[in-house]
Amino acid sequence: MSALPDIQLALRPGIVEFGWGHPAAELLPVDGLAAATAAALAAGPNALAYGAEQGPGRLIAALAAWLERQEGQPVTAERIFVTAGVSSGLDLLCGLLTRPGDTALVEAPAYHLALRIFQDCGLELIPVAADAAGLRPDALGQALETLQASGRSPRFLYTTPTFGNPTGICLAAERRAAIVALTEAANCVVLEDDVYRSLWYDAPPPPPLAAYGRTEGVIRLGSFSKILAPGLRLGWLSASPEIVQRCVLSGVLDSGGGQSHFAAHVAAAFMAQGRLEAHVAQLRAAYQARRDTLLAALAYYLPGDCAWLAPGGGFFVWVRLPEGMDSAAFLPLAEAHGVSFVPGARFAPGGGCSDYFRLAFSLLAPAEMALGAERLGRAINAARVRRPPAA
Amino acid sequence: MSALPDIQLALRPGIVEFGWGHPAAELLPVDGLAAATAAALAAGPNALAYGAEQGPGRLIAALAAWLERQEGQPVTAERIFVTAGVSSGLDLLCGLLTRPGDTALVEAPAYHLALRIFQDCGLELIPVAADAAGLRPDALGQALETLQASGRSPRFLYTTPTFGNPTGICLAAERRAAIVALTEAANCVVLEDDVYRSLWYDAPPPPPLAAYGRTEGVIRLGSFSKILAPGLRLGWLSASPEIVQRCVLSGVLDSGGGQSHFAAHVAAAFMAQGRLEAHVAQLRAAYQARRDTLLAALAYYLPGDCAWLAPGGGFFVWVRLPEGMDSAAFLPLAEAHGVSFVPGARFAPGGGCSDYFRLAFSLLAPAEMALGAERLGRAINAARVRRPPAA
Repeated sequence: MSALPDIQLALRPGIVEFGWGHPAAELLPVDGLAAATAAALAAGPNALAYGAEQGPGRLIAALAAWLERQEGQPVTAERIFVTAGVSSGLDLLCGLLTRPGDTALVEAPAYHLALRIFQDCGLELIPVAADAAGLRPDALGQALETLQASGRSPRFLYTTPTFGNPTGICLAAERRAAIVALTEAANCVVLEDDVYRSLWYDAPPPPPLAAYGRTEGVIRLGSFSKILAPGLRLGWLSASPEIVQRCVLSGVLDSGGGQSHFAAHVAAAFMAQGRLEAHVAQLRAAYQARRDTLLAALAYYLPGDCAWLAPGGGFFVWVRLPEGMDSAAFLPLAEAHGVSFVPGARFAPGGGCSDYFRLAFSLLAPAEMALGAERLGRAINAARVRRPPAA
Repeated sequence: MSALPDIQLALRPGIVEFGWGHPAAELLPVDGLAAATAAALAAGPNALAYGAEQGPGRLIAALAAWLERQEGQPVTAERIFVTAGVSSGLDLLCGLLTRPGDTALVEAPAYHLALRIFQDCGLELIPVAADAAGLRPDALGQALETLQASGRSPRFLYTTPTFGNPTGICLAAERRAAIVALTEAANCVVLEDDVYRSLWYDAPPPPPLAAYGRTEGVIRLGSFSKILAPGLRLGWLSASPEIVQRCVLSGVLDSGGGQSHFAAHVAAAFMAQGRLEAHVAQLRAAYQARRDTLLAALAYYLPGDCAWLAPGGGFFVWVRLPEGMDSAAFLPLAEAHGVSFVPGARFAPGGGCSDYFRLAFSLLAPAEMALGAERLGRAINAARVRRPPAA
């Protein structure tokens, strides 16, 4: 009867699929969420009613405590809005902050599917270059100046400064301070996509961007997708009370009530049962082992003229191919060798990155990743053999 | 700790709140949904993964069978898209079909919070008059002609032809055919808000608008909010495969996967357990009793120069005040008498309806509604005493 798939993930037999930045199915806390749902419904029908527009008070209170522990500074409930995940949150914010034809700045490279959301909203995207240490303050300053000189002001800057997708880079504290100073001076809102913050493997990351300024200009987006379960379609944003109220007062919330309300009650029960801290600790250990396996396998199997940085957290390794190779052109050969990835150009709003590709280590078991790295190495060498010699 | 509310409903002590078009808490199937969630999670982690963009195949298959029984004609899976409720579906469709500044036609009066969603999207709304039999084909024809004469074409017509909010009117088959013919001739998409179809109390309604034409021009929106639980934030739309694919391919779906994915698995399990038909039958009986109580109480307590139609389904009774009374101006006095409602002007995109108000019979227990009607009658008489005599 059910010919259509239930889930988004579509694995092809015989291919090591490094392309999917999804959590591993075996790391989803099925039993814990079943217990949390039972508790949420045992408390009565509130989890099934139209939800408070800002999100259920019980989840907001739990998030405020969670964010306070994470940030080491007070977080008040009036600064938190519950979303249906970061994608939905970005879409809602674009509706509130922008109109088609508006300009926005995006870190380059950036999460490719966020770019699609912005493009659907009709935004003109202006890339701001990052280097091996993350978003470059000098490039940001230049972009802001250029826009100002032509009488335009960007509606926001989108960035993932902490173990970003696709690069895995964690922006240093000094750059965070410089970027916040620049955007504050230009009166440019920052959308800080911060979904990987809890998934650090070596050392905790620096505080979020809002900690480096007056905080009113930063909207930070978090999510349960990476630390609990993406199917819940549940996240949050922390922002000024004014931004929170603009979200709360939008027509779609007025009509339907709070987003992902049932899932929000389930997550609140999961947190009330004290399960989240332990679960995240378990995820950190599991993903760290996967990252270490992948990095070791890349070092062993990839040719010496490939390059990558060891990510301190998150889901991804960003690999540079040997000089002259194009990752999109290389993909069919790689897949013929039984390994896949996402070509770098998809993350580059202004072009470029065609010699890079993104590997996700979140989905695959360690043994599979070692096999995939070996196939990648063979495919790169095969591509090299096929290339004409330099003139 | 949790100072903020969990749910949207905010009842004031001492007031009979006819204003909220919410399902009654005691009619939410808490135990059935707990069993369905347990079953959905016992099947493995798929309910927690990123969902298929179109919605889980298992829910789409169940919906196809459900809609087929309802419509008496085949419904294929490729025509169904799972939404996060009608509000979210309308917002998504506005993003796909419109740009700010575009024009849309809306039945008048219409669901006031849908109007807010359209206004948030920057649409110019042109009202099309309804009478006691629902949307008027002659008014629609005139509106389409006027627009065409000025070189504009509306992006869509929004209507709730079946036990509509706020009027409760069910459009007759002949008008359905006429409206579809007019919109097809004008190449104007129809957004048919059909959330009350299953909640009929006297006789099943005529088929949906799509049954009266080539079906490609009608997007019909359904929801689990009224027949299962609004907190699930779960609905569907049935449309041409092309519209379904445009929804599927939107950036926000590509990024976050299917909407309300966990809730969708819970609803699919509820349907697979055979619970939905029996639950809807129970709702019909319960809401019919509430409707009958309210209508009897209105007939008993309201002055003879008030008027209303007996709705054959849905949640609402649309009441006209005695001549010269304004419902918004009357509301404070009504609340001072311990009864509340939504003034009619809020449902009127082009003005008017100020002598009407909307009563919801979905939320309140029968005894409370009788008390509310009695208070309404006293308040209306009190307002009459206060009014200056006619010159």
